Amino acid sequence: MSALPITHDPLAQWRQHSEPWYLPVGDEVASFEAAYALRLPVLLKGPTGCGKTRFVEHMAWRLRRPLVTVSCHEDLTAGDLVGRWLLDAEGTRWHDGPLTLAARHGAICYLDEIVEARPDTTVVMHPLTDSRRVLPLEKRNELLHAHPDFQLVVSYNPGYQGMHKQLKPSTRQRFTALEFGYPAPDAEARIVAHEAGVEPALAAQLVALAQRTRRLAGEGLDEGASTRMLVHAAGLVRGGVAPRAACLQAVVLPLTDDPELIEALRAAVEASFA
Amino acid sequence: MSALPITHDPLAQWRQHSEPWYLPVGDEVASFEAAYALRLPVLLKGPTGCGKTRFVEHMAWRLRRPLVTVSCHEDLTAGDLVGRWLLDAEGTRWHDGPLTLAARHGAICYLDEIVEARPDTTVVMHPLTDSRRVLPLEKRNELLHAHPDFQLVVSYNPGYQGMHKQLKPSTRQRFTALEFGYPAPDAEARIVAHEAGVEPALAAQLVALAQRTRRLAGEGLDEGASTRMLVHAAGLVRGGVAPRAACLQAVVLPLTDDPELIEALRAAVEASFA
Amino acid sequence: MSALPITHDPLAQWRQHSEPWYLPVGDEVASFEAAYALRLPVLLKGPTGCGKTRFVEHMAWRLRRPLVTVSCHEDLTAGDLVGRWLLDAEGTRWHDGPLTLAARHGAICYLDEIVEARPDTTVVMHPLTDSRRVLPLEKRNELLHAHPDFQLVVSYNPGYQGMHKQLKPSTRQRFTALEFGYPAPDAEARIVAHEAGVEPALAAQLVALAQRTRRLAGEGLDEGASTRMLVHAAGLVRGGVAPRAACLQAVVLPLTDDPELIEALRAAVEASFA
Amino acid sequence: MSALPITHDPLAQWRQHSEPWYLPVGDEVASFEAAYALRLPVLLKGPTGCGKTRFVEHMAWRLRRPLVTVSCHEDLTAGDLVGRWLLDAEGTRWHDGPLTLAARHGAICYLDEIVEARPDTTVVMHPLTDSRRVLPLEKRNELLHAHPDFQLVVSYNPGYQGMHKQLKPSTRQRFTALEFGYPAPDAEARIVAHEAGVEPALAAQLVALAQRTRRLAGEGLDEGASTRMLVHAAGLVRGGVAPRAACLQAVVLPLTDDPELIEALRAAVEASFA
Amino acid sequence: MSALPITHDPLAQWRQHSEPWYLPVGDEVASFEAAYALRLPVLLKGPTGCGKTRFVEHMAWRLRRPLVTVSCHEDLTAGDLVGRWLLDAEGTRWHDGPLTLAARHGAICYLDEIVEARPDTTVVMHPLTDSRRVLPLEKRNELLHAHPDFQLVVSYNPGYQGMHKQLKPSTRQRFTALEFGYPAPDAEARIVAHEAGVEPALAAQLVALAQRTRRLAGEGLDEGASTRMLVHAAGLVRGGVAPRAACLQAVVLPLTDDPELIEALRAAVEASFA
Amino acid sequence: MSALPITHDPLAQWRQHSEPWYLPVGDEVASFEAAYALRLPVLLKGPTGCGKTRFVEHMAWRLRRPLVTVSCHEDLTAGDLVGRWLLDAEGTRWHDGPLTLAARHGAICYLDEIVEARPDTTVVMHPLTDSRRVLPLEKRNELLHAHPDFQLVVSYNPGYQGMHKQLKPSTRQRFTALEFGYPAPDAEARIVAHEAGVEPALAAQLVALAQRTRRLAGEGLDEGASTRMLVHAAGLVRGGVAPRAACLQAVVLPLTDDPELIEALRAAVEASFA
Repeated sequence: MSALPITHDPLAQWRQHSEPWYLPVGDEVASFEAAYALRLPVLLKGPTGCGKTRFVEHMAWRLRRPLVTVSCHEDLTAGDLVGRWLLDAEGTRWHDGPLTLAARHGAICYLDEIVEARPDTTVVMHPLTDSRRVLPLEKRNELLHAHPDFQLVVSYNPGYQGMHKQLKPSTRQRFTALEFGYPAPDAEARIVAHEAGVEPALAAQLVALAQRTRRLAGEGLDEGASTRMLVHAAGLVRGGVAPRAACLQAVVLPLTDDPELIEALRAAVEASFA
Repeated sequence: MSALPITHDPLAQWRQHSEPWYLPVGDEVASFEAAYALRLPVLLKGPTGCGKTRFVEHMAWRLRRPLVTVSCHEDLTAGDLVGRWLLDAEGTRWHDGPLTLAARHGAICYLDEIVEARPDTTVVMHPLTDSRRVLPLEKRNELLHAHPDFQLVVSYNPGYQGMHKQLKPSTRQRFTALEFGYPAPDAEARIVAHEAGVEPALAAQLVALAQRTRRLAGEGLDEGASTRMLVHAAGLVRGGVAPRAACLQAVVLPLTDDPELIEALRAAVEASFA
Repeated sequence: MSALPITHDPLAQWRQHSEPWYLPVGDEVASFEAAYALRLPVLLKGPTGCGKTRFVEHMAWRLRRPLVTVSCHEDLTAGDLVGRWLLDAEGTRWHDGPLTLAARHGAICYLDEIVEARPDTTVVMHPLTDSRRVLPLEKRNELLHAHPDFQLVVSYNPGYQGMHKQLKPSTRQRFTALEFGYPAPDAEARIVAHEAGVEPALAAQLVALAQRTRRLAGEGLDEGASTRMLVHAAGLVRGGVAPRAACLQAVVLPLTDDPELIEALRAAVEASFA
Repeated sequence: MSALPITHDPLAQWRQHSEPWYLPVGDEVASFEAAYALRLPVLLKGPTGCGKTRFVEHMAWRLRRPLVTVSCHEDLTAGDLVGRWLLDAEGTRWHDGPLTLAARHGAICYLDEIVEARPDTTVVMHPLTDSRRVLPLEKRNELLHAHPDFQLVVSYNPGYQGMHKQLKPSTRQRFTALEFGYPAPDAEARIVAHEAGVEPALAAQLVALAQRTRRLAGEGLDEGASTRMLVHAAGLVRGGVAPRAACLQAVVLPLTDDPELIEALRAAVEASFA
Repeated sequence: MSALPITHDPLAQWRQHSEPWYLPVGDEVASFEAAYALRLPVLLKGPTGCGKTRFVEHMAWRLRRPLVTVSCHEDLTAGDLVGRWLLDAEGTRWHDGPLTLAARHGAICYLDEIVEARPDTTVVMHPLTDSRRVLPLEKRNELLHAHPDFQLVVSYNPGYQGMHKQLKPSTRQRFTALEFGYPAPDAEARIVAHEAGVEPALAAQLVALAQRTRRLAGEGLDEGASTRMLVHAAGLVRGGVAPRAACLQAVVLPLTDDPELIEALRAAVEASFA
Repeated sequence: MSALPITHDPLAQWRQHSEPWYLPVGDEVASFEAAYALRLPVLLKGPTGCGKTRFVEHMAWRLRRPLVTVSCHEDLTAGDLVGRWLLDAEGTRWHDGPLTLAARHGAICYLDEIVEARPDTTVVMHPLTDSRRVLPLEKRNELLHAHPDFQLVVSYNPGYQGMHKQLKPSTRQRFTALEFGYPAPDAEARIVAHEAGVEPALAAQLVALAQRTRRLAGEGLDEGASTRMLVHAAGLVRGGVAPRAACLQAVVLPLTDDPELIEALRAAVEASFA
């Protein structure tokens, strides 16, 4: 643990070794491939836990590209993305950040929840997302020309009420965009059954519950239950927890702290498992 | 004290050597075990001093896992959790933070009062809390795959009036949740008697006082007396302090500075020790 | 990757090796050349994606000057622009920032989206933009006299509604200014056809769509579709995507998240491809 | 002055070599001793200059414990309290902060004006103030178990009008609390006479003045005159200053800048020395 | 570029080698000389681009003093002005900042746009601007007595509407002040003709335009056209640009982005070149 | 300039070699001496430029003590005052800050404009200003006992309208205080005549002007003319400037930028030199 790992394939850790399971819900695979063919940057919009990250993993596998993922947040700086000088036993040494690594060696770089990042994180990618496809590394006087295989993908959730964070038009207009929603009930039940290894009947009951919670979104609840939550609940049931207790633990209590909303969600559980 | 300690078992300090005493108040032990079996992250909700920390200690003991605890606060950075490069006599050396240590070697990592942390602390755990179970260490270009025994547990208190700090839906939906309250009176009296080594009668009087204070919560008082406070008061009585003076010192004065509320609480002491 | 690159031509990376294609929309080429002849700084105003960056690339090619571009943002400091001391194996070494590099060796320095920068970034260029043409490097006690070929160019978009960021009068009055808009329909269609390699008829339909979206600017939409977006959509069509789907992906969804505006934009797509 | 002092007794500087004079005003000595017997943390509440610091010094002397005092303020970080790595001629060396020093070697640690500290300073002491009695030193991967003699004491002044700084309930409920006020007139006069070496008659006149000023607290004046101010005034008189001039210099002008309040206070001086 | 330049005359770079051309508009030269004779600090007030900087250059030439100029901004720290320790191949080395350099060796130090600086930048010059004439360098325990030739000059523009930045009275009262305005029309025309090398007739037309724009100041326009803008426009005309186009490029578009104001300014151009 | 100066008398630079001229306006000299005899900290209140700094210089001379002065400002940290570790050719070395230097070796430490400092700067002096007279240097684990000759003096100006910065009561009550105003007219004229070397008649006219300006304080003007301003104006007149021009330059223009107030002040000049 005493030195930076030296590898011959600098992207080795970011290559996937098995196919991520993904059930398409529309023509998103073809749309993404068309954008990748032109190396156009892609913006994924959609609610929490609906499968955006899994979709990117799936597309990276299909396109045989390594995938470098960054979870964005307020304290992520341009330096974190681009790289910095590190002090070493032999002096200073340049360390590529994840965006530079992807651009230099030809990975797909995925910036998750991009609106959480500070403006400088956003603007640093501007020269990479127009016809120039360059990344200026001012700190080492290098003008990096992106690898021909490099592509940038970002995602965010446009649905929060009263969200004050937004991408600037000058950033948005650099992207092509795909919109995600919750899968159709049948597809969502197939996903839950596949991911948690449960019977279709239970999966269908959980999807019915999710739909009831999603109707409460905007009425006090920020968002309804995600597909991920249903997979959690299904897993608990498979592990021996009673269905209603599993829904309380995996769906109701994580969704809200408000006593009235908890009551409404408990009623939705009762209705779904009546 | 002049160098980092070198240990063969990097989690040795975080192993518990005796069983933490815990009196279950419902089916929280089974619920936690079901979540751990699937390695689902767990969110504990409940008021101050009701036993959340003790519960996690107890579960780590039951599951034979080391427990790495972090008290969250506004100045805790993602770097504090994940790790950083330290300058050493032989150059820079990587130092795992507590979250990385737990993920690498298979401990339960417990982030206490998670809502006090800054957003970047929260988002850094996202890739650890979905099916990927990875922690990207951008600063050393390592994509850490969590140890199979690793689990993440977080807690917070949803009860403060006017609390402006909240977990984002995209974070909440990654967790299964358990809700804690004050124990039922008999159970709470057993806990107080056990922890402070006092007679059941005194413990019951203190529990009665606690219930009176809890009715004042929301009427000027942020929260009623915690079980911990009752243990303090009981200990002072056992050490020779008169019960009313002990309640003033351990319950009334710590709860508030407001003269009217202090009077109301003194009256509750009188009523409980009449 | 272990040391700063050493080059005999310090601006080699910033020289362009082929002519950037640019279709003039007025007398902007002559105006820029007149300003360059006097080395007056130039301010480019205009909406997102209308070709300001391409124009600067074109002018640098015409004037046979290297072009050093900086994307401005809130976290860009004066030190990033001017330079700093770096610690090296042999001690500290001075590293010219991009503005200093351009001023020292005679490039055109282009600060894109200057209003996004912090005030100190703006003020550092004051002594470079009046008759003194000097850049004080306080940190190394050097008063750099700009190379005779050096020129400063900045750009910004004055059109955002409610934009609170503005250049100070004491900065603005140092510049001569050129105003850009969207090209006339015929010119814009020629640009789209040239850039994406598509037929004039498709380009004309896309321009018609853009004009419809631009009428919505200020009515909820921050800005209408840029020429760049049309090039994206045309590229997707050329790659096999149906025109309406391409417009949805490259124009509608990137422009807005508002459901009503999305509907209005879909209608504009229908009207343009009827 | 060129190296950190090396001592065999790391707490030598914090041991008191003579008994601090303290006149008890109630049963605060017994209450503190009862809390110390259980090593319960203690919270001291009371107005400026009423003797809280002297009381802690006195108790540390009685209990034969060294006393490590920290004056809290907004810029005090958790790192200042806990410790940090320092770069040395032989590499980095760990430096215990005052809280760690006290916890490791068994001192009483006194955090004066705790509400002035930032939240992270407060939360760092949480694991030290419940049954765990540990201090996690994340930066050196050490989980410090507190010395059996260690105790934590904090103080603050609850009386400022409109004070927005408060301890969180989750912090308060970890403490037992003692409330301090101004001593009764006879006791206060004895204190003033003892500390300044003046006659009882002068001390009584000064106490009478103090009581007049305390009635103005809340009516424009933040707080009335402290016992410390009376000691100052008495000392000036003993040094030859006329009593009214001494009161102006030591009481009236330090208390306020408001011309009307200064007049009211001057009148109180006249009344007390009529 | 690998080390700090070593010079025998530490102010060599700040000596001017030819006389800066300046046309006096009143008795400002004598007033400045009287202040310099007493080494009183001087405050220059006046609008953007009216010649304050040129005046200081001229006075430094007349008084045979080097001129060290600093453009103030929000991120300029006291450390930037005063100096700091730099790490070198042979250890740390002190580096005088521009204010220290000027005070130590006897230059005129000119802080341009002083109100843009942060308060610490302002207060650091207090001991230099009263009878003490010292600069405490706390970081190296040096109390620098200013060179007998040293003088401090600062400037700012009092005219912005709604400007919230102000010098504190305790700073202002340390200065003697000179007020600048736009030159009288004849003088301004002579300046434009001299600086741009154009005929008096064109210069007079440009001055007439400037006067029209200055009447719009306060009616939406922050400031009217500066003398500098007229020199720019005259230069463009001399370079072959038509007068109206030159005025649009050098005066109208730099002054404002507001469509209505642009129309009003265009009308002023028409009227001036009718 | 390549190393910290080594001196045998660490306070040599802060010793004064001639008596600072000071004309007492009341019994402030005796009051200060009484406080110094008890080593009580002293707080000086009064308007800008009325002589507080000169008074402290005078008292330090009378008491034969070196004087270490610090101008307080928002960016002054506790570390600046107390000291820090510096990296040296031979490793790290401790550097006493000015407060520590004064406390260790027995100087008077004068913190000018204390309310401008941040709270941590204020609180760091608390243990030095009560009976403990210690300064904890947490960063080097030293508890510094102040030299017997050490005294702390602070100053501020209570007169600004709407000033939001205030000393906390817990800080104020540690000081004895002296109040300064403008000297009586005769005394002020003597000071002006002495400091500038002018005739009493001119000095009296300037004092009359000052009194007129002071009546405008609070009516738009923050403060009236200070004694220092009169000395400036007198000096300009002695240097050959006409009295009214000297008053404009040294009094009117530095006092305000408001056109109406400037007119009122010009009228006051006319009245004083009629």
